[in-house]
Amino acid sequence: MENANFPTSDKGRVYHVEVKRGEVANRIITVGDHTRAEEFAQYLDKDSPLFRLSSARGFLTITGKYKGVPVSIIAIGMGLPMMDFFVREVRSVVDGQLAIIRFGTCGSIGDARTGSIIVQNAAFAITRNYNYFSDTEEIESELTDEKPYNFTKIFHADPQLYKKIELELINSFGEDNVFTGLNATCDSFYSSQGRKDGNFRDYNSNLISTISDIYPEAISLEMEAFMLFHLAKSSTSLPLKDSNNTILKNSIKAASAAMVVADRVTNDFISPVKVHDIQKVAGRAVLNALVDFELIYVHPDDDDCVWNKK
Amino acid sequence: MENANFPTSDKGRVYHVEVKRGEVANRIITVGDHTRAEEFAQYLDKDSPLFRLSSARGFLTITGKYKGVPVSIIAIGMGLPMMDFFVREVRSVVDGQLAIIRFGTCGSIGDARTGSIIVQNAAFAITRNYNYFSDTEEIESELTDEKPYNFTKIFHADPQLYKKIELELINSFGEDNVFTGLNATCDSFYSSQGRKDGNFRDYNSNLISTISDIYPEAISLEMEAFMLFHLAKSSTSLPLKDSNNTILKNSIKAASAAMVVADRVTNDFISPVKVHDIQKVAGRAVLNALVDFELIYVHPDDDDCVWNKK
Repeated sequence: MENANFPTSDKGRVYHVEVKRGEVANRIITVGDHTRAEEFAQYLDKDSPLFRLSSARGFLTITGKYKGVPVSIIAIGMGLPMMDFFVREVRSVVDGQLAIIRFGTCGSIGDARTGSIIVQNAAFAITRNYNYFSDTEEIESELTDEKPYNFTKIFHADPQLYKKIELELINSFGEDNVFTGLNATCDSFYSSQGRKDGNFRDYNSNLISTISDIYPEAISLEMEAFMLFHLAKSSTSLPLKDSNNTILKNSIKAASAAMVVADRVTNDFISPVKVHDIQKVAGRAVLNALVDFELIYVHPDDDDCVWNKK
Repeated sequence: MENANFPTSDKGRVYHVEVKRGEVANRIITVGDHTRAEEFAQYLDKDSPLFRLSSARGFLTITGKYKGVPVSIIAIGMGLPMMDFFVREVRSVVDGQLAIIRFGTCGSIGDARTGSIIVQNAAFAITRNYNYFSDTEEIESELTDEKPYNFTKIFHADPQLYKKIELELINSFGEDNVFTGLNATCDSFYSSQGRKDGNFRDYNSNLISTISDIYPEAISLEMEAFMLFHLAKSSTSLPLKDSNNTILKNSIKAASAAMVVADRVTNDFISPVKVHDIQKVAGRAVLNALVDFELIYVHPDDDDCVWNKK
């Protein structure tokens, strides 16, 4: 490893995801769980080579082709920082536009029951306001205006990409089982999602109702989608114009969908068997949406790319 | 899995770390990397059983005895949310006080060169202010008072525990190679640690100098220690008094140390071989500190505990 600013190995591998140029496609499905990545990988074309890389830091990259189009399926684990590692390190080794679809799990705070799917067309973050829980008791009185949890502004999914996902999911699961709306990405599975835990002072008993006050249209809670949308929005432009001569402002197009595994209204929790059944069908749907999405500039499709290896 | 508030399996296993009662000791070393956990586990007593559990979500728990005392070594991956999962889920399955020592890697922004060790006796967090990077351009002008990165107040390590660690590390590495001081826990390896990445608008070119302005005594940057100190401070009391009749305010005692792998002053980055050499020695030092730390109430030491299994 060299250069503490952006460490890469002497083979050009990034530090945590461990991929290098030619190992990641411009079209990516990202999931949390390694077994979900392996399950989705079963749909990749059998007549193309399948590249697999497990990094020491918990990332799994699988690259191949789906319907003849190069795609990567990347498992990243959980939480905002893992999404940040993935997006930044992958962005650094792929030329051209990236289209990234997150497919994960979420809790429902709206009409969606367990077993249904939520297309997250926008997201805000709920973050714990650490200062509210100050280490120095006497400071706490200064903080009366502060709230224990902060709510960010909303960031959006790419409209074309999420609509393709929505359509494919409705085709697979039916209109009654697919919900589209605003997602809250939380920096904890527990405190900032309003779960009660007597072992910690979390001051979160009103959190779910506070969400309804601030963003009444919020329908799901999870832990990663916001960062994907936020980094897509923060991505710099490619040195390119599209066919309408519009300068491309962002090099990353992002969208997200998630299975409802926890119903925070009824307190119901899904069985692992049901998760498996849903993701089998959903995997094809998100892959279909991904390869149907047009990118105007992609990585050179040469012999150095793992999907072209003999 | 049942109960969306705090999901556990019908065997009493927590949802992400997957441990249950009797599988985790009150004294814990936590690391990021699975291979580091395995390396530290080599020091555990050979005449006691070694329990190992890899969870589907990337956590590795190894429990045994060190010098006759039950200890767990738990690898948690990277980032604030992973520390949160670990601390909350482990706390829910262990009775009595917990002593948790983090041993990780960090970047140095002070006098410590790569290969030395920093005992982090306190920490603040540097978090990206997502609103500064708003998705809606026209809102940005409202935000002129906001900064792109926020700095929290400081939370502290347990003084007795970190001093034991400091002493053991000095005994192993010499005074010149051990530094004690304030740590910044960052919510990104990249943006909130001041790394430059032309693929994203990060507005972080002044970040390292801003740290010096706000907390001139800060000497290291990493991604987890703050959450450990913060949750220890936020932990509720045990229904117990200590020998001086003082009510125990917090059920968790926490401390942290980290190898310097990146020197953010010289831009030097350490070799994997050197990391390995250092952690071999440091592993014994932190285990010695951990078992030497007094806890006044621990989990019942019965046949259900994995360290007592035949």
